[in-house]
Amino acid sequence: MFDKKFEHFSVGETWISRGRTITEADIVMFSAFSGDWYPLHTDKEYAEKQTPFKQRIAHGMLVLSAATGLQKMDPEIIVAFYGVEKLRFITPTFINDTIHVEMKVLDLQDKQNGTGVVTFEEKVVKQTGETAIIGTFKVLINKENKEG
Amino acid sequence: MFDKKFEHFSVGETWISRGRTITEADIVMFSAFSGDWYPLHTDKEYAEKQTPFKQRIAHGMLVLSAATGLQKMDPEIIVAFYGVEKLRFITPTFINDTIHVEMKVLDLQDKQNGTGVVTFEEKVVKQTGETAIIGTFKVLINKENKEG
Amino acid sequence: MFDKKFEHFSVGETWISRGRTITEADIVMFSAFSGDWYPLHTDKEYAEKQTPFKQRIAHGMLVLSAATGLQKMDPEIIVAFYGVEKLRFITPTFINDTIHVEMKVLDLQDKQNGTGVVTFEEKVVKQTGETAIIGTFKVLINKENKEG
Amino acid sequence: MFDKKFEHFSVGETWISRGRTITEADIVMFSAFSGDWYPLHTDKEYAEKQTPFKQRIAHGMLVLSAATGLQKMDPEIIVAFYGVEKLRFITPTFINDTIHVEMKVLDLQDKQNGTGVVTFEEKVVKQTGETAIIGTFKVLINKENKEG
Amino acid sequence: MFDKKFEHFSVGETWISRGRTITEADIVMFSAFSGDWYPLHTDKEYAEKQTPFKQRIAHGMLVLSAATGLQKMDPEIIVAFYGVEKLRFITPTFINDTIHVEMKVLDLQDKQNGTGVVTFEEKVVKQTGETAIIGTFKVLINKENKEG
Amino acid sequence: MFDKKFEHFSVGETWISRGRTITEADIVMFSAFSGDWYPLHTDKEYAEKQTPFKQRIAHGMLVLSAATGLQKMDPEIIVAFYGVEKLRFITPTFINDTIHVEMKVLDLQDKQNGTGVVTFEEKVVKQTGETAIIGTFKVLINKENKEG
Repeated sequence: MFDKKFEHFSVGETWISRGRTITEADIVMFSAFSGDWYPLHTDKEYAEKQTPFKQRIAHGMLVLSAATGLQKMDPEIIVAFYGVEKLRFITPTFINDTIHVEMKVLDLQDKQNGTGVVTFEEKVVKQTGETAIIGTFKVLINKENKEG
Repeated sequence: MFDKKFEHFSVGETWISRGRTITEADIVMFSAFSGDWYPLHTDKEYAEKQTPFKQRIAHGMLVLSAATGLQKMDPEIIVAFYGVEKLRFITPTFINDTIHVEMKVLDLQDKQNGTGVVTFEEKVVKQTGETAIIGTFKVLINKENKEG
Repeated sequence: MFDKKFEHFSVGETWISRGRTITEADIVMFSAFSGDWYPLHTDKEYAEKQTPFKQRIAHGMLVLSAATGLQKMDPEIIVAFYGVEKLRFITPTFINDTIHVEMKVLDLQDKQNGTGVVTFEEKVVKQTGETAIIGTFKVLINKENKEG
Repeated sequence: MFDKKFEHFSVGETWISRGRTITEADIVMFSAFSGDWYPLHTDKEYAEKQTPFKQRIAHGMLVLSAATGLQKMDPEIIVAFYGVEKLRFITPTFINDTIHVEMKVLDLQDKQNGTGVVTFEEKVVKQTGETAIIGTFKVLINKENKEG
Repeated sequence: MFDKKFEHFSVGETWISRGRTITEADIVMFSAFSGDWYPLHTDKEYAEKQTPFKQRIAHGMLVLSAATGLQKMDPEIIVAFYGVEKLRFITPTFINDTIHVEMKVLDLQDKQNGTGVVTFEEKVVKQTGETAIIGTFKVLINKENKEG
Repeated sequence: MFDKKFEHFSVGETWISRGRTITEADIVMFSAFSGDWYPLHTDKEYAEKQTPFKQRIAHGMLVLSAATGLQKMDPEIIVAFYGVEKLRFITPTFINDTIHVEMKVLDLQDKQNGTGVVTFEEKVVKQTGETAIIGTFKVLINKENKEG
């Protein structure tokens, strides 16, 4: 979504990413990388017998990390990524679920200094149509008009 | 920190994790895993010549993911991870910075149903003492007393 | 480059990718993945003392693989990737070299069936301006006009 | 195949490698490493519903990279790898296909300077007997007789 | 197990770890990392048709490496890891087996210098109850009493 | 070494492998894979300030795992890998050390059933000439004479 300058955004506009299937290999690799071996993610026996999901689920941070890679981000555009506002993990992502990202502009704030703040909603959606994660983010981007 | 039941937490208590050095290999692996090849993370020439940092920096999500692996989480304790409240990326993490996690209990809410909500501040701190990331999180955990 | 239909290409047009720094971690990961542990890539002592380069170099296939990820490829556009015509490894890629891809359309052949063949030169170029790899490739892509 | 000096090669001789099964994990890891997340390789839903293969397939470069690791290459023997002549991707490699490499000497050219050029055909063959990739390569290797 | 000082150990005491499922991705990653592509681990066709197990099995060193990560080791406690006494690979670990570690103190030797040697049996046990690996190890750890 | 039948081995014979440089990336990847994040391996600050080595060192199991990949093992030859006899970690392996394996046949036992047991010493040696690991191993291999 962030492949154009501030002036070209409008509140309410949306953007949809390509998909990515979250595989068992992704969960193994993310457990390894993050060091988070929580049994719900890494112990098949435990997940099947002692959790409501009856199977292993992906780490919330795995899905959120994969989501960042599904977005279009142009270095010419983005000045700074502020961070995350409220973020909720709604539906678990299971092995072989395919996720994509849906973004929607919530607010635009012109900083009058050649930049502007875009507040947007980011949803990670599964092939089932269920929302896995929903959150609000803020990013500072460049304007065409560098004067104001 | 989450290796004890709700009754044993008190507002203001803190917990500090071991450290982990964020290496060039971590940035390469996270770029690969997430699919986020933003040049600030993956293009040495660009980072040195066209960014204020004059070097590559770690992805915010990389640092946040590594932080989850630095925490103690006991499956007997945790019922559900709600998500993230306000989260801010404050100082960039550079290659060879060593991070650790500092947690502080902000609020305790007894759900009167055998569980309770712990609201805590999580800070990712570098060996320099600078805070890389600060955020507020909410988690639902078990009580000793399953009746109320 | 392949984010538009056949009619929009013209012989001689060029496209340049973002950059990617090839790190020691990339060479270790590719040696592992490919199973090619040739000492020129994986044995620092050998590379420094017994090769003209006096250091480890990246696998030719590593650089070629990284190059595929630097290209823009739209599933709506590409029908089939034919393969590689003549390909030459010209200059070795060393640890910390930053590569980018330069593409140039050499020939366009309308198949009169809703598709066309684009023959293009692909160069992998280093931050020094040296060409690491040069080759000719052929790809079958869609036309706007699906009738002919 | 390249574990003997030039004088010991003869036109028409063949060599066959061990096998390697290409798993879903290999495709995930190569997508990550290369940065090539083309949906045909990484989006299960897309591959099953919108491609003739009705499933994900391995990247051509993945198979070619794995093939290099299946070859025997002795540093005492090889002087330089020239590159690739015509190369064609013939049959897709699916998850759990097992590949091996078949090599055949096509031409021998004595450089009269202690080295010689071996031109060989390389085929990547699947457990089904189908050829996944076929190409012609040229490599410069040492002679026993370093004088001529 | 090694999260307490020497004085707090007693011969015969036991410790049990969490579990970890060994996936196909783990075997692929370990083959890659170690460079051990032995067909019993990496060639599905070979493993199914030419081995008594009729399937691929995990590397013994993979299981042993995963086992080290399942143990609790406190840097304040451990002085030195001596090594391995007799070690036997008893039952193969198959794809999707879930392993855990069972440790038992066999002998305690007070070095009278602020440290002591703990000799322990380590068993890697599968969800079936079968022992995959059994061995004896020796580790030097700190005492509360640094004087003797 | 295990690329010939039992009859062709003799007590005292030796075999030397190619080398492999153990990089920071290897230590990061092995920490991730094994789940062993012991600070001596993964925390640069801790390793430099609080250990006698004044730097991070590779996991013993990492070096042992890499050593298995440096050996020649022919599926036609090996029947079973018994395990490890006494094994000692002697000198730490630091980032950028290059290791190779030296093997020596200690004992040969003809099982009179078409197989024989080879007992051998395995040393992992660094470019400095220092021995990192030394151990004794037993492997069951095939004879030419399958009758006895």
